[in-house]
Amino acid sequence: MADKNIMSYETVALDDEQSALVIIDQTKLPYEVEILHLTEQKDIWNAIYLLQVRGAPAIGVAAGFGVYLAAKRIQAETYADFAAQFKAAKEYLDSARPTAVNLSWALNRMQNVVLSNPEKTVPELKALLHKECVAIKEEDVWMCRQIGEYGLSLIQDGCGILTHCNAGQLATSKYGTALAPIHLGRERGMNFKVFTDETRPLLQGARLSAFELFADGVDTTVICDNMASQVMKNGWVQAIFVGCDRVAANGDACNKIGTSGVAILAKYYGIPFYVCGPTSTIDMNIEKGEDITIEQRPAEEVTEMWYKKRMAPEGVNVYNPAFDFADHELITAIITEYGIARPPFTESLKEIFRKKQEAQKK
Amino acid sequence: MADKNIMSYETVALDDEQSALVIIDQTKLPYEVEILHLTEQKDIWNAIYLLQVRGAPAIGVAAGFGVYLAAKRIQAETYADFAAQFKAAKEYLDSARPTAVNLSWALNRMQNVVLSNPEKTVPELKALLHKECVAIKEEDVWMCRQIGEYGLSLIQDGCGILTHCNAGQLATSKYGTALAPIHLGRERGMNFKVFTDETRPLLQGARLSAFELFADGVDTTVICDNMASQVMKNGWVQAIFVGCDRVAANGDACNKIGTSGVAILAKYYGIPFYVCGPTSTIDMNIEKGEDITIEQRPAEEVTEMWYKKRMAPEGVNVYNPAFDFADHELITAIITEYGIARPPFTESLKEIFRKKQEAQKK
Repeated sequence: MADKNIMSYETVALDDEQSALVIIDQTKLPYEVEILHLTEQKDIWNAIYLLQVRGAPAIGVAAGFGVYLAAKRIQAETYADFAAQFKAAKEYLDSARPTAVNLSWALNRMQNVVLSNPEKTVPELKALLHKECVAIKEEDVWMCRQIGEYGLSLIQDGCGILTHCNAGQLATSKYGTALAPIHLGRERGMNFKVFTDETRPLLQGARLSAFELFADGVDTTVICDNMASQVMKNGWVQAIFVGCDRVAANGDACNKIGTSGVAILAKYYGIPFYVCGPTSTIDMNIEKGEDITIEQRPAEEVTEMWYKKRMAPEGVNVYNPAFDFADHELITAIITEYGIARPPFTESLKEIFRKKQEAQKK
Repeated sequence: MADKNIMSYETVALDDEQSALVIIDQTKLPYEVEILHLTEQKDIWNAIYLLQVRGAPAIGVAAGFGVYLAAKRIQAETYADFAAQFKAAKEYLDSARPTAVNLSWALNRMQNVVLSNPEKTVPELKALLHKECVAIKEEDVWMCRQIGEYGLSLIQDGCGILTHCNAGQLATSKYGTALAPIHLGRERGMNFKVFTDETRPLLQGARLSAFELFADGVDTTVICDNMASQVMKNGWVQAIFVGCDRVAANGDACNKIGTSGVAILAKYYGIPFYVCGPTSTIDMNIEKGEDITIEQRPAEEVTEMWYKKRMAPEGVNVYNPAFDFADHELITAIITEYGIARPPFTESLKEIFRKKQEAQKK
């Protein structure tokens, strides 16, 4: 068993003194906790590319720290020279996962610090970049804590919770999104009975969610995805929390494959189904779930994970979509850092964005 | 890839000359076709316990052959001595798996041969037992072909079919139950687009159903269990066929874990959900699904199947029920060798048994 004190580590941290990005190597979980201290840009690039750090918010934070570390090393006399070297470093990290939105979002935010301060000296720019990357992380922690607070208001201490995939601390800086109510509850001495769908094909539920919950002292039970129906029928689940990769304007919530099935079961058994995500994952320009393109992933993820021997006959077809979406009619509420949206979502999500705008004005 | 001519092997056979039960070791499929010749009772017990032979009808046939082989070895002078030794052998095999009704059904049928022939000599008893276990297998092949005929009457050539676990040829002597319409259709030049849920934890769908269907030339696509919802949503499935381990008098159908979830999805998407099984799996003495004892299996099946490294943290709870049941309200029809039962099942299942009694009178 790996070190149980995973919760005392941070998923992504900056060791400014040693000029290192510090992460848990998530490709080795749950059987090994290896903390990586990455100082070289190629190692940071690799960590993102190889999914040693994963989860959209965590990738953004890692990229912010990473490009700051690159900036720190820049030896330049002039602003122009510094900006050019910074741009190269930023573009290098940006190439690690071309489709990960938070990666370019965080890197562009860092670059804006440079672009909007042409009058500053090189040491001043480095100090501003440090401040910005720390802010990205702090905002991420705030966002997760907010989702945790709102989520916690919907459940009772001791209740049963089911989750799918990993939208936890390991995918963010702290708390997670879907798992934030549970971790925040733990800080306050509460406990829950949590069931984690293993989440085939890549097993993020068994490997990551079960790991971080168990390490946080939560009563955690791993189940295969197809056991969720029986667990609900047994009356063991009072609430379901899942994360989301993208939410459409009508509330359709795209998330890890299997989410739609869990939502249909929840409806059948009369269990509230909650989708957790920051407002950055809500895309008001997308009308409905059908308009979201679903990534198809390699067949080998399904057929060759077991003892490295084939699990299905060679040559057979495999259908391996990475995501599906829970129809808005199946969703009880969408929990964001600016509050809880309830049906009809076309209205309530707009209200969430109004609250966000107000908060940002202050 | 293992030998593709799996359809030319028999799932369960008796080698009377060598006093051996001959089976395909289904735990090694699909990457190895290993034929086991089992002569020792502890190996036959283990084969049933370890699922080297599995599927209710195949277990029944194996148990019949197994207890016949035990009987063959009995050295007894008197009927009483023979009957006592036979009872011990029968009870030993009966302890291998608790939920499968066919195991005790076949063993009781064999025991009845002994109990109802107290006037016979020991060699005569052994000959009668041989006749009986051969008959069990022949009836199994007939039963599967009948289910295939009835199932085929419900679908169109070329349609999409989804199945869960393996209620196929590998679970019976020939054709299977849930897969009988597909195999029988193949014999008649038909084809179907079949989706096989991989069926965690033991992957009978990916390993066995996909294997035997692909070997039979069927257009077969493997999916993870949590992808079934998306496949149904895509409009790719016109009928769902599953097997059953035990059906209650009200139609509640106990089958591999995950079946209830598939049934709920089918209801949601408006797809007919058919349960296939011989009348021997219908237990009119059990009122409803809740009264069926569900076997709990070892946690390691869930946690340690991946690269032989743990897939979940050590010490975490695991819930690993082998079965659940599809509520009768979710079932479109139950297909037996004596016809198709439709709701209300409390009436239609009785009618099936009336037909069976009539047929047996002739």
